Amino acid sequence: MTTIISATTHDVRFPTGKHGHGSDAMNKDPDYSAAYLILETDQEGLSGHSLVFTIGRGNDLQCESIAQLAEAVIGENIEGLVDRIGDIGRDLVRDSQMRWLGPEKGIPHMAAGGVINALWDLVCKVEQKPLWQVLAHLSPEQLTNLIDFRYLTDALTPEEALHIFQEMEPHRAENERILLEKGLPAYTTTPGWLGYTDETMVRLAHEAIADGFTLIKMKVGGSLDNDRHRMKLMRETVGPDITLAIDANQVWDVPDAIAWIKGLEDDKIHWVEEPTSPDDILGHKAIQDGIAPIKVATGEHVHNRIMVKQLLQSGAISFLQIDATRVAGVNENIAMIAMAKKFGVPVCPHAGGVGLCEMVQHLAMFDSVAVSGHHDGRVVEFVDHLHEHFVIPTVIDKGRYIAPTTPGAGAEMKAESIRDFDYQTGKEWHA
Amino acid sequence: MTTIISATTHDVRFPTGKHGHGSDAMNKDPDYSAAYLILETDQEGLSGHSLVFTIGRGNDLQCESIAQLAEAVIGENIEGLVDRIGDIGRDLVRDSQMRWLGPEKGIPHMAAGGVINALWDLVCKVEQKPLWQVLAHLSPEQLTNLIDFRYLTDALTPEEALHIFQEMEPHRAENERILLEKGLPAYTTTPGWLGYTDETMVRLAHEAIADGFTLIKMKVGGSLDNDRHRMKLMRETVGPDITLAIDANQVWDVPDAIAWIKGLEDDKIHWVEEPTSPDDILGHKAIQDGIAPIKVATGEHVHNRIMVKQLLQSGAISFLQIDATRVAGVNENIAMIAMAKKFGVPVCPHAGGVGLCEMVQHLAMFDSVAVSGHHDGRVVEFVDHLHEHFVIPTVIDKGRYIAPTTPGAGAEMKAESIRDFDYQTGKEWHA
Repeated sequence: MTTIISATTHDVRFPTGKHGHGSDAMNKDPDYSAAYLILETDQEGLSGHSLVFTIGRGNDLQCESIAQLAEAVIGENIEGLVDRIGDIGRDLVRDSQMRWLGPEKGIPHMAAGGVINALWDLVCKVEQKPLWQVLAHLSPEQLTNLIDFRYLTDALTPEEALHIFQEMEPHRAENERILLEKGLPAYTTTPGWLGYTDETMVRLAHEAIADGFTLIKMKVGGSLDNDRHRMKLMRETVGPDITLAIDANQVWDVPDAIAWIKGLEDDKIHWVEEPTSPDDILGHKAIQDGIAPIKVATGEHVHNRIMVKQLLQSGAISFLQIDATRVAGVNENIAMIAMAKKFGVPVCPHAGGVGLCEMVQHLAMFDSVAVSGHHDGRVVEFVDHLHEHFVIPTVIDKGRYIAPTTPGAGAEMKAESIRDFDYQTGKEWHA
Repeated sequence: MTTIISATTHDVRFPTGKHGHGSDAMNKDPDYSAAYLILETDQEGLSGHSLVFTIGRGNDLQCESIAQLAEAVIGENIEGLVDRIGDIGRDLVRDSQMRWLGPEKGIPHMAAGGVINALWDLVCKVEQKPLWQVLAHLSPEQLTNLIDFRYLTDALTPEEALHIFQEMEPHRAENERILLEKGLPAYTTTPGWLGYTDETMVRLAHEAIADGFTLIKMKVGGSLDNDRHRMKLMRETVGPDITLAIDANQVWDVPDAIAWIKGLEDDKIHWVEEPTSPDDILGHKAIQDGIAPIKVATGEHVHNRIMVKQLLQSGAISFLQIDATRVAGVNENIAMIAMAKKFGVPVCPHAGGVGLCEMVQHLAMFDSVAVSGHHDGRVVEFVDHLHEHFVIPTVIDKGRYIAPTTPGAGAEMKAESIRDFDYQTGKEWHA
């Protein structure tokens, strides 16, 4: 019998703010950070890793919240864990005293996700499979049991979820074969950050095309004139066969969003991402109606399944951009993926940051094998930052995510990266 | 010139979980707690106090988040502070690295409220007025400048807010006279907690009527049979002239809420409070439509003005229950009060907990003088717990909140209470 015996957290931060990487209209100087959790077991060499992505200040609070919640899983046995993660996840989210601080949102909710995802990493290592494959090999009943249906049943009942998973079951083997052969389409945000000069943007756009990407996303929302200039330059650079999406990172009010997007005078924009507050369900719907045929995408800051439910129920979004660490872990993301399937909205995960590509690819791959299958609507964000710190870095080939086959859930960082970038003790911060 | 020179926080917790006080269908064993902030100035005896209410675990995280944000106001001058609090509040909420952890919700957002409210306490002490009066004596322009209109302008523009404040300006003196003479109607939750026996409930209900209350709120959602039994017993106890409201503390899904409320077979229920997740705008609207003529109330867990905006825009609620410490302080509550006025929804504040009565009464009184005036729809929650720890405890007379005249914003606790109930060092926890 193998047991979880300790939980340690690490406040890992990368000084990205110095270089303009990751700059957008809302976030001027992010230091990409990981509130990092290791669950150690009494089996030599077996530990579960996860992280919650933040952008600097407050990463210490996120670590402390994870440490507090992780106490609940110390003493858990590894055997049969996969069939208890649903209940463990519900218990973590429902700790009534911690819940008050959200409820089901923000630091404690993301902390619950950190703990849940570290458990999944353990499951993967025991089963010797990558996360996408562990999930894609669960029975429809096991998958359904992972979902917390509280507050969802007006949109998705357990019976409906079960039916969704059952429907794809006969196609799983073929879907997995296609995934292993071809991977999943990626898109890139690398050329599009607001902080870059025109020259940098053009150079990186050429590189992106050479690398096989066919969708490039640009940050917008600084000034309309500048956005027009950059979009025109980008169009000239990439030619007619490359698709462009834009991302405003929540800078607009609802009327401003509609006016600004119309002011860009470009109906070929594939999607407008985060046009306003992630909390504004009705606002997203008004924007979606106001900018048609351009479509709205959001999700990376949407704090739980209840908000996603409403975005889908109201028809406010045309693409759902799940995030690996914003919500209560793999379990809550499975709820979102199932709801998106029911409402016919493609899941196009958010990534970038620290380890988000490494983590979220598993969810997209699970979706492609066991929920919505392979289809044209799915594209997974890729940003080429910080992958060198991960034990299993993402592999992109000709603009596609190649399915990892190494066991794990994706978040495990190299020991020396954790050590050197520790915000309290690492040499990168205390040279 | 007087300057803020330090910020200290205290993790104050009361062991209320032991006695069943505050128990409801969602929160079984809350230890009512205060993440307490003192801003000291270089003027002898002048300090600003505030607190964020939590229910136990995590109160330390809330304290630490407050301490981190409070660093931004060290060095602020007290002179002219009232005209800078709007900008300070916006800056606190927009710290981009901290914002990532919400955004605009949860621990850092409540922490911003803690800092903002301590600044208001300082303003009150300098002006030698209670908070309600400080606010009610501000010009319409000053009030408008306190509001963060980001994400609100599709529902409330600065011009509309100014107009709302201007419209009531000629009536302020008369409204203030009425307030000082009569106070504001209170309602009580004291008899209605789920953890109480029938005997305790009946005894406390008789006491409530003897004390002059005309609206009693009961916790529901444990079991339908028990709720029917308790409601019937309560009706028999209080007679036909007392109004009853019910509070489910978010335990239901949308279809369950409608079925349960109809199952109570009592159309005279004044409101149903928190029938489902506070995040579920569309769900509240569906419940409101499904249980008419019974009305829906919520707000205490609604995490910011953007959510309140949507509850009002969609007609999902008939009563708005603002909370003194859930959001980014007095400033964000003024935004909500102004929006409620525009949409014609009465503001009926949530209170109880630790110091929430002491704090939120000021907002209701400000509303009654300078925004919506005196009207029949307003009633302010009162729970008779823990008032003895406050320097200016609420005064209830014949079921009405009597307006405080002592300078302050309401949160200041007695020094010995802070000392004795400190969770790390106090004798109540370390006897």
